[in-house]
Amino acid sequence: MIRGRVTGRVWSTKHVETLPNGALLEVETEDGGRLIAFDPLGCAEGEAVLVTQGSVAAGYFTKARAPVDALIIGSIDE
Amino acid sequence: MIRGRVTGRVWSTKHVETLPNGALLEVETEDGGRLIAFDPLGCAEGEAVLVTQGSVAAGYFTKARAPVDALIIGSIDE
Amino acid sequence: MIRGRVTGRVWSTKHVETLPNGALLEVETEDGGRLIAFDPLGCAEGEAVLVTQGSVAAGYFTKARAPVDALIIGSIDE
Amino acid sequence: MIRGRVTGRVWSTKHVETLPNGALLEVETEDGGRLIAFDPLGCAEGEAVLVTQGSVAAGYFTKARAPVDALIIGSIDE
Amino acid sequence: MIRGRVTGRVWSTKHVETLPNGALLEVETEDGGRLIAFDPLGCAEGEAVLVTQGSVAAGYFTKARAPVDALIIGSIDE
Repeated sequence: MIRGRVTGRVWSTKHVETLPNGALLEVETEDGGRLIAFDPLGCAEGEAVLVTQGSVAAGYFTKARAPVDALIIGSIDE
Repeated sequence: MIRGRVTGRVWSTKHVETLPNGALLEVETEDGGRLIAFDPLGCAEGEAVLVTQGSVAAGYFTKARAPVDALIIGSIDE
Repeated sequence: MIRGRVTGRVWSTKHVETLPNGALLEVETEDGGRLIAFDPLGCAEGEAVLVTQGSVAAGYFTKARAPVDALIIGSIDE
Repeated sequence: MIRGRVTGRVWSTKHVETLPNGALLEVETEDGGRLIAFDPLGCAEGEAVLVTQGSVAAGYFTKARAPVDALIIGSIDE
Repeated sequence: MIRGRVTGRVWSTKHVETLPNGALLEVETEDGGRLIAFDPLGCAEGEAVLVTQGSVAAGYFTKARAPVDALIIGSIDE
């Protein structure tokens, strides 16, 4: 997993139907990179989070074939 | 997922048979990288898009074994 | 796999339910990168470890769908 | 997927038995990186190609468990 | 796949039980990176090798759930 910080939120009105409903947060990683992660936890801007990537992220969804390759799995205690 | 911007389209007349029909768009990512993603949404050049990668991208196709490792899953509202 | 060194531990009180119980260690890799890996071995700070990544890491858990994409699989003899 | 250009071929007399028969081409990617990809299309040196990576590449082979993580899926029209 | 050169061997006395028996070799990649790969072929230090990564590497093992994300699949003819 990687550690990151929530820096914003992304909205996508036009999207594939298999994208689960929920928040897509912009996360800045420790090395200055950026990614968009699905957030099932209701994290706020500025919160330190733990992000898992790849097919492991999609496995979180019980609905098959969610096209999600980055998932916030926890908020890091600070 | 990563955020990118559509910069062009790629055509491949000679390709493996399992490649699904559809548009292959060139996307420039925020960090200046480039990738080619399958586009099921009909995105235009210059559009900001959300791209998912890896086996999760292939999972979008109901036809088994699509050799696609990058998929545009949404257009980002701007 | 990659070689790394344990530099700390991360706690996450607010997390998804499918995250297995256990230690989440911060690991610095040889090239100066950082990641958070699940540790089933009880490694200590400063220990040299071997980390596996991706869906292979999640496969370690018998409980399905563990959202873990980095796992310490061994302590490197020094 | 990524765009690359074929720069050579690799031969491996000593290899694991599960490696499918066929050409292993050296591909230089747009950002100057290099990888070795399996080529089912008979591409020539200097040809622009589309490469898919990860488990998606292995899925191309009907024979189970092909240890191939990079596959040329098309020649790019130029 | 990536091309690399064997630079050493790693021993891990304390490891997870699902790690298969065999050699774990340190490989330096063309771009100067380093990784640890499982070697089923008996490669020697200095040998040029072909490495596959990710879940494809774990698929080589018939025993389920081997936590191996990098595998030497061939020695490159020089």
